[in-house]
Amino acid sequence: MKFGLFQTPFTRPERSPRQVFDWAVDQAVAAEQAGLEEFWVGQHFTLGWEAIPNPELVLAAAARETERIVLAPGAHLLPYQHPAHLASQTSWMSHITQGRYILGVATGVNPVDAKFHGFASQSENLDMSIESLALMRQIWAGGPVQFEGKYWNSQLPAGDHGGHHLRDLRPYGGSMTIAMAGASPNSTSIAYAGNQGFIPLSFGGSPELVRNHWETYLQGAREGGVDVSTLSRASHHVGREIFVADTDAEAERLVVEGPIGHAWREHLIPNEQRRAARIGVKPLWDDKSDLIELVRESMIVGSPDTVVAKLNDLMDASGGWGTTLIFGHDFIDDPAPWNYSLQLLHTEVAPRVKSVA
Amino acid sequence: MKFGLFQTPFTRPERSPRQVFDWAVDQAVAAEQAGLEEFWVGQHFTLGWEAIPNPELVLAAAARETERIVLAPGAHLLPYQHPAHLASQTSWMSHITQGRYILGVATGVNPVDAKFHGFASQSENLDMSIESLALMRQIWAGGPVQFEGKYWNSQLPAGDHGGHHLRDLRPYGGSMTIAMAGASPNSTSIAYAGNQGFIPLSFGGSPELVRNHWETYLQGAREGGVDVSTLSRASHHVGREIFVADTDAEAERLVVEGPIGHAWREHLIPNEQRRAARIGVKPLWDDKSDLIELVRESMIVGSPDTVVAKLNDLMDASGGWGTTLIFGHDFIDDPAPWNYSLQLLHTEVAPRVKSVA
Repeated sequence: MKFGLFQTPFTRPERSPRQVFDWAVDQAVAAEQAGLEEFWVGQHFTLGWEAIPNPELVLAAAARETERIVLAPGAHLLPYQHPAHLASQTSWMSHITQGRYILGVATGVNPVDAKFHGFASQSENLDMSIESLALMRQIWAGGPVQFEGKYWNSQLPAGDHGGHHLRDLRPYGGSMTIAMAGASPNSTSIAYAGNQGFIPLSFGGSPELVRNHWETYLQGAREGGVDVSTLSRASHHVGREIFVADTDAEAERLVVEGPIGHAWREHLIPNEQRRAARIGVKPLWDDKSDLIELVRESMIVGSPDTVVAKLNDLMDASGGWGTTLIFGHDFIDDPAPWNYSLQLLHTEVAPRVKSVA
Repeated sequence: MKFGLFQTPFTRPERSPRQVFDWAVDQAVAAEQAGLEEFWVGQHFTLGWEAIPNPELVLAAAARETERIVLAPGAHLLPYQHPAHLASQTSWMSHITQGRYILGVATGVNPVDAKFHGFASQSENLDMSIESLALMRQIWAGGPVQFEGKYWNSQLPAGDHGGHHLRDLRPYGGSMTIAMAGASPNSTSIAYAGNQGFIPLSFGGSPELVRNHWETYLQGAREGGVDVSTLSRASHHVGREIFVADTDAEAERLVVEGPIGHAWREHLIPNEQRRAARIGVKPLWDDKSDLIELVRESMIVGSPDTVVAKLNDLMDASGGWGTTLIFGHDFIDDPAPWNYSLQLLHTEVAPRVKSVA
């Protein structure tokens, strides 16, 4: 199994932006040194806890300070940016990273971010995202652009317009690797990823959801006319909460008493309560539940042996996936236990977890 | 006089984006080491010669690698981005740089960039820019946002929306330092800068234009109800082509035979011919002119003594200004003469050039 680090980031709201930024760039370096394969950074505009408005700012700095790790914005919220603007910048980033780049895209689920961008409703966010991708792909093809959409227009003349030397807007290597995230069962985003041949990225990694997402992905692929025999679960990315220490007791203590427990108590659990109340469903986690129960039931926390066993059980129960993205946390005050967890993951866990074909 | 470096960038179109990026970040470091005060980076989307689509990507990396120099995007093209998106990102950058930040803004004059963003005409670009600034300032004030404009809307609830901890979007130090650029006589952008109390930035530094821009700026300030006795020419930034070497002959040779001459022959002169033809005016520079004539007439090139004398003459003829922004060039293959020029500028030229009050 491959591992990557997903920097949402879950940094405490009282951190300064410079602390959030430096921690994120330093974590790209730490993840590379620990041997991880990918480093993802989220995009949010208004939340105190998830406080990076443009992941590319972190990734541009990280491109100078890393050599090998794949850098990925996770994800650009497509309805909120002009696709030509975004296509030009992400193509540039694919070159800056010399191809160490996956473009994560999403339709934008946070209602506060939507209102911040002047959206009275999010009902057209998926349609806008589909149009955005169509325009971006026309731009990335490198030829002249003539696009009139429902939401956006764009024109680019052929390469030598009246003596004007225009830039080559094709991504590094000629094409863009795209990933699309989904979090709910039968996710339309995951189905669309299948339809378009994007990498599927599942948040909320219960075995049922992982299995459902792979089936949704295949269904989307079939509807898109893709030969599904060419698809492999190895492309499936799944986000999980993982922490490894020398013993189970030590790992559980560091999670419950440390920054991960703090983020769950102060941000993730209350956030889920609000989400569930808003849409009228049962919350995934009970507000009153003892955190240790949650750690044992919903996270993958323990010694290398425990983490290997839990991951292999999940692989069996879900049908398997290819890359696990671990959610990064705010170990700014003492990075050692976190960076040690990443190291154990690479050296002690990864070699013993099953792979999918 | 203060000096800064303006990285348009004039890098050759055959450079890879990674070369353009690395050269820009390295130049921020070189400018700081040479003792310069400011480092600016332009934004263009489609030109081969001016090839940085988002200056903040360079400045974010430079924030990690510099300590003192002021970092400035020059400029964000306001009509092409949602103001809420931009306000959130630039506020973040002001914190990332810990206040070493000037936000350059412009209305976007390049017609290819405009079409690329779906604009059939640029006739509303100034109005859009004005609305963009009004919305961004409301966001930067840090309170709830309720904005309905002609072009954009935005809403942000008060700080603790249903338990959601929202981010503080105020810039570092509580307010944003803004600069606005103009290039033509009686520039409406420069007048608007005066009206709003922004730093004026003049491209095309003939003494007549500098004088005209300062008068246009004061006129705008008066119309905005600003007490003009509080304004100083020290805030006026002027972009110029400057190169210093030990002797006049050496400086002229390095300009004519080197990267600066190449950029003028291949990009700047043909570009000016096209611009003049498009709007039906006489070009600023004759296509057939000997480059050495252009160097002596329109640039500030020579030994430290010559450059001091030329700058002091310009200060007298124009009424003076506060900060000169030198246009950066593509000395990627041999940075030594360029970095030496920056050094001479700081050590030999700056102390002997007049200051304005």
